[in-house]
Amino acid sequence: MDSNILNNLKLTKVAASKIDTFDFENVKFGEKFTDHMLVCEYKNGEWGTLEIKPYAPITLDPSARVFHYGQAIFEGMKAYKEENNDIWMFRPDQNFERFNKSAIRLAMPAIDETRFIGGLKELIKVEKEWVRKGLGNSLYIRPFMIATESGVIASPSNEFLFCILLSPAKSYYAGKIKVQIADYYSRAANGGIGAAKAAGNYSAQFYPTKLAQEAGFNQVIWTDSNHTHLEEAGTMNVFFRINDTLFTAPTSDRILDGVTRKSLIQLGESLGYDIKIESVQVDTILNAAKNGTLKEIFGAGTAAVVNQIEGFSYKDQYYQLPEMADEESYALQLKNALTKLQNKLADDPFNWTVKI
Amino acid sequence: MDSNILNNLKLTKVAASKIDTFDFENVKFGEKFTDHMLVCEYKNGEWGTLEIKPYAPITLDPSARVFHYGQAIFEGMKAYKEENNDIWMFRPDQNFERFNKSAIRLAMPAIDETRFIGGLKELIKVEKEWVRKGLGNSLYIRPFMIATESGVIASPSNEFLFCILLSPAKSYYAGKIKVQIADYYSRAANGGIGAAKAAGNYSAQFYPTKLAQEAGFNQVIWTDSNHTHLEEAGTMNVFFRINDTLFTAPTSDRILDGVTRKSLIQLGESLGYDIKIESVQVDTILNAAKNGTLKEIFGAGTAAVVNQIEGFSYKDQYYQLPEMADEESYALQLKNALTKLQNKLADDPFNWTVKI
Repeated sequence: MDSNILNNLKLTKVAASKIDTFDFENVKFGEKFTDHMLVCEYKNGEWGTLEIKPYAPITLDPSARVFHYGQAIFEGMKAYKEENNDIWMFRPDQNFERFNKSAIRLAMPAIDETRFIGGLKELIKVEKEWVRKGLGNSLYIRPFMIATESGVIASPSNEFLFCILLSPAKSYYAGKIKVQIADYYSRAANGGIGAAKAAGNYSAQFYPTKLAQEAGFNQVIWTDSNHTHLEEAGTMNVFFRINDTLFTAPTSDRILDGVTRKSLIQLGESLGYDIKIESVQVDTILNAAKNGTLKEIFGAGTAAVVNQIEGFSYKDQYYQLPEMADEESYALQLKNALTKLQNKLADDPFNWTVKI
Repeated sequence: MDSNILNNLKLTKVAASKIDTFDFENVKFGEKFTDHMLVCEYKNGEWGTLEIKPYAPITLDPSARVFHYGQAIFEGMKAYKEENNDIWMFRPDQNFERFNKSAIRLAMPAIDETRFIGGLKELIKVEKEWVRKGLGNSLYIRPFMIATESGVIASPSNEFLFCILLSPAKSYYAGKIKVQIADYYSRAANGGIGAAKAAGNYSAQFYPTKLAQEAGFNQVIWTDSNHTHLEEAGTMNVFFRINDTLFTAPTSDRILDGVTRKSLIQLGESLGYDIKIESVQVDTILNAAKNGTLKEIFGAGTAAVVNQIEGFSYKDQYYQLPEMADEESYALQLKNALTKLQNKLADDPFNWTVKI
């Protein structure tokens, strides 16, 4: 950390906080934000002064590159409050590293650890009252970077804005979801930007997901370019349990290197699970569903942590997964173990939590 | 056209035009804009009032969907002024149709012809002094749509902004360019958004293009998912001339249905060229380059119209195309014929030009 950067941080506080009128009980994920945000501009080849200021609109020229050429990346992270009021981030180093990998793939500038993690810490200190205690309660953190230079010229921008927003999130039970395995549409290309947390990847998913929803499903399980191997579930990584072995695809330039995914793998191994990081064929899952060995499917991501899947369709055929007692579910055991660790209600033998 | 929509158009003019200080001779493509822009908001399931107002920044919540999930599409078009001061658009119906195809693929609302073409005509009438006469001079038109709803929720926005910017463009000779055939990176996925004029497609190209430029090339020729077939050149469609036959790939869900591409095909056929719309293999081009039958390669797009390619590299091997007299070049003949037609300096047997 470069203490000069943090010493020069410019802090402008709101005249009056809106926290007293904020409905923490009924907040919807990602909809409302705290009083302040962190911003930092990139210009003339370097990052400028960190600034924490009242949450406010962004004003850009209508020809700003982000509107036309999609240079935009983000991260999703969470912070948690312990019973003694200490606040903890979860593996911020992983998000910081991935953010810079995304930046490189999108021809955007990398940012230093002081501005990303150091700046985030300062922002959370200012907003500490917005972090609520209790299992599952958290502060959702949204760092993002957009191309701000004006001019409708199809080349990388030379000016960027880095920004962090904070949004209180409640523990919620999303329910089990039904998914459709993609046999035509794709989320990412071989040699494309699928591994980057890039805005463009999401815009590509919305229409096929809408079609799936119109057909009665919640999400799409994305497949490879030949639609023979399973890759991601909606905006999450995906795990398959056949008998007592848990499978998830290796990361690649098509698949996001999810922090929840890698944490669940380590956690599962520490719980003694048999976990195999290997490409899973659609045929394997169809056969396992037919012969009853397919026990569970679940998505893994920062927002929902774990999202259980109750069944899937492939080429208009629906496959329902078996009912399972909660205490036998790997999905629920992993979710429980990880959220307890994140909320400091269980030990953290991996040193994943970082105190603010 | 719905005359009610046009009758209700709200027009606010600038206090003073900046046209007298505008350097038409030295303007760079896409860098500067006219006095006014057209805007229209989509909310509660419908498009609102058309508005022409002074060119001004756009103000959005920092959680606006376009910054996080990349719902953003655009078009590129041109208008031209005839010697008698009539102003003509070139095939606006084609851009209008493609804009709505892009919108559907990105889960964005389609827009009506009155707001798109009718609104554009009104805007150009207001800005008629900005369109300059002379072969190659034009007014570049940039319609675009962005997702404006706030909330970091990975689902389609319910609110959008449609906007048209105008930028005077000069005739320019870009020079012949050198290109690199992609053997690892991709622009688009099978079942992806490559056929849409979507912001996300461009952000995916910037980094591989930067690598190509660092290696001494101007652009990348994109290939299919196995990197065996040639698809697009940079942000243009691409044509290959082997002996006296001109090849270009058929459009697909990976390849943009370029208006310049389809116009050149029709124009070339009317000139008696032998044109084949078929997938072109990398191997075919390598062999043709080696045995001397590969005569020309050129890109086709709205900005440069035609961009000649002097050579290409594939897996670190460079292939130089033969020198050719200007009057023998299909690229230059087609460019000349199309720009004359667009500028009303030649007949328009296809009825492509539309008077404002």
